[in-house]
Amino acid sequence: MCGTEACLIKCSPVPCVTPETRENGTLINWDTLINLDHGDPVMYESYWRKMGNRCDITFSGYQSLSYFANAKNLCWFLEPKLEEEIKRLHNVVGNAIVDDHYIVVGTGSSQLIQAALYALSPTDEPEPISVVSAAPFYSSYPEVTDFVRSGLYKWAGDARNFEKDGPYIEFITSPNNPDGVTREPVVNGIQGILIHDLAYYWPQYTAITSPAKYDVMLFTVSKCTGHAGSRIGWALVRDKEVARKMTKFMEISTIGVSKEAQLRAAKILGLISDSCLDPTLENFFEYSQSHMTKRWQRLREVVKSSDLFTLQKYPLQYCHFTRDFYESHPAFAWLMCKGSEDDLEKLLKGYKIQTRSGRKFGSDPKCVRISMLSRDEDFNIFLQRLMSIQGVTNGN
Amino acid sequence: MCGTEACLIKCSPVPCVTPETRENGTLINWDTLINLDHGDPVMYESYWRKMGNRCDITFSGYQSLSYFANAKNLCWFLEPKLEEEIKRLHNVVGNAIVDDHYIVVGTGSSQLIQAALYALSPTDEPEPISVVSAAPFYSSYPEVTDFVRSGLYKWAGDARNFEKDGPYIEFITSPNNPDGVTREPVVNGIQGILIHDLAYYWPQYTAITSPAKYDVMLFTVSKCTGHAGSRIGWALVRDKEVARKMTKFMEISTIGVSKEAQLRAAKILGLISDSCLDPTLENFFEYSQSHMTKRWQRLREVVKSSDLFTLQKYPLQYCHFTRDFYESHPAFAWLMCKGSEDDLEKLLKGYKIQTRSGRKFGSDPKCVRISMLSRDEDFNIFLQRLMSIQGVTNGN
Repeated sequence: MCGTEACLIKCSPVPCVTPETRENGTLINWDTLINLDHGDPVMYESYWRKMGNRCDITFSGYQSLSYFANAKNLCWFLEPKLEEEIKRLHNVVGNAIVDDHYIVVGTGSSQLIQAALYALSPTDEPEPISVVSAAPFYSSYPEVTDFVRSGLYKWAGDARNFEKDGPYIEFITSPNNPDGVTREPVVNGIQGILIHDLAYYWPQYTAITSPAKYDVMLFTVSKCTGHAGSRIGWALVRDKEVARKMTKFMEISTIGVSKEAQLRAAKILGLISDSCLDPTLENFFEYSQSHMTKRWQRLREVVKSSDLFTLQKYPLQYCHFTRDFYESHPAFAWLMCKGSEDDLEKLLKGYKIQTRSGRKFGSDPKCVRISMLSRDEDFNIFLQRLMSIQGVTNGN
Repeated sequence: MCGTEACLIKCSPVPCVTPETRENGTLINWDTLINLDHGDPVMYESYWRKMGNRCDITFSGYQSLSYFANAKNLCWFLEPKLEEEIKRLHNVVGNAIVDDHYIVVGTGSSQLIQAALYALSPTDEPEPISVVSAAPFYSSYPEVTDFVRSGLYKWAGDARNFEKDGPYIEFITSPNNPDGVTREPVVNGIQGILIHDLAYYWPQYTAITSPAKYDVMLFTVSKCTGHAGSRIGWALVRDKEVARKMTKFMEISTIGVSKEAQLRAAKILGLISDSCLDPTLENFFEYSQSHMTKRWQRLREVVKSSDLFTLQKYPLQYCHFTRDFYESHPAFAWLMCKGSEDDLEKLLKGYKIQTRSGRKFGSDPKCVRISMLSRDEDFNIFLQRLMSIQGVTNGN
């Protein structure tokens, strides 16, 4: 940084740093927006490249023509190999009880969120059931709940402000998206129906303090292994009728889930389990923990040297998977503006950093959610641009 | 057939025929239900086996991690290779105009049906828009339209009985599921919005009389190539804003469509186009036309020699793809009972043939829909059982 007036906030965004080149050869110059709005988990590509052809999977033209994967299973389109690898991975990591639960596979966990709402909503009520989550909540919940104006369920906002009597559905996202905080139910009403969204309850993001054992638990390959393009999620469901209704939802809405994606996900989850057990393989969670830890350290240093921003803090917790203490390193940074700036998303966009405003999470526009799962070169430029806003020297 | 009393209707279902063995070694005896309820297109496996490894596709662990396929495309999750092969196949077959249409990919055409309803429904009306289709209509339309009790759209039944003023959405399925008939709009109201479901407009089922050019056209890999397990469908959409809203539906409901399934579908569609142009390859449509023609001939012979049943008839039409006249050989047989039996599904189930009642298509329970796309051995047993009901001699 040159430290001149031009480097100061709002005067001349992001000066004095040499343009960089992406791996694919495209130049990132200062006109290029760095998109950290979505949680696109491309950071994990480096691990999978190191694994070479260990995860290769080949499909012949004559395979997987049928709609059915296992007609005898309650979830008749679930590939048996994926079911096996999901169970194995949860047992290896210890982050969820699977033995007394049914597995329902979905086209990403978005579809499972809708399937769970469909399965858990009363069908005999005149009014749709209220759906809530404590702010800041995952920005998709309101949209996914309301986009077709269902008469079964209706978004009712921040769980902390919910005071209606009667049944309701509460999403508990833990660790939370956007802020990474470990969560418990908030409303605690007698007729509460809970959906635990555990997309981020994996060792690279947070300590595994005990195996989760809830009625409905949602997971996704996207945030576990980084394979967001596959669109594979799964639900662990205690009650048979709820699992049956969720399966019915999948049947009506998409007649099951892509077999190619399921079989590839099985292979990938299988390798992750192997990597935790076979010392000749690089442990996936150690690799990604190490990456997340370094990124968070660098971000915290940049933020620390600033008067403008603060970050969410996390406690040190004992992780039963790594058998060590671990501080959460969430998939998103929840950045807050201490200054007079009212719209942090807008401020950062001026510096070519695309983030998602706290407003979209039912929270303060002085906050933004920033993906921590971008490629290295994008993350580096993000830090440089953040520093340039603050006018501080890069300590790294 | 022995021709004894035991062979006659309702006395002793399906006697005197030797049990058969499936390709996978399991025995089909007379206790085994032959399931022709679903249109599971496993008939096509034989073609794809003959193609050997020509359609093999391998995925490495580091591929397709991102949510995005082409951020610059309106449908940002559509793989460019799939887009290219969809356009190429339509041009080769001549069954749809693609050049002035947007392509939106979906998790099967079921999801596209919902996306189209979402995109085409008015958002400023107090009441949901009526959705209709002429009976017999595809049995999923009522369920897909109403399952989450949308406030945007609502199933209003048989298009022929629809007399309400104002806007409505009409599904035109052509050739029709279940009865294979070529269709036109029925309501013809001033404010009608049309969705053309062209899942079966391929040369193995019907003559390609001209390239379809409608506002919204739906297709699916399942019924074109037989790869139902992949869950890939596509919409050709004339209006940019409608295509954008359909894409938005996919984004909210499943954040896109599996990349593995898209890339494999691209490979498979590509081979089909190649097979039409390269004389060293067995032409996919000729192969499947020949299969469908033989099956329909055999079924018509069985039905002809019976006093109990009749089948839908189809005109001979000139097919611009094969440059020859062709009579439709639909993916489903629409079988009608001439006798006093009121519930044909029940009658056939007594003979261990699972079909789908006309009732589910908004039609007469004296009719059933029967899949013509089963494996050869199941189709053979179906014919034997059908003969045994009638007490006629097998002419084949």
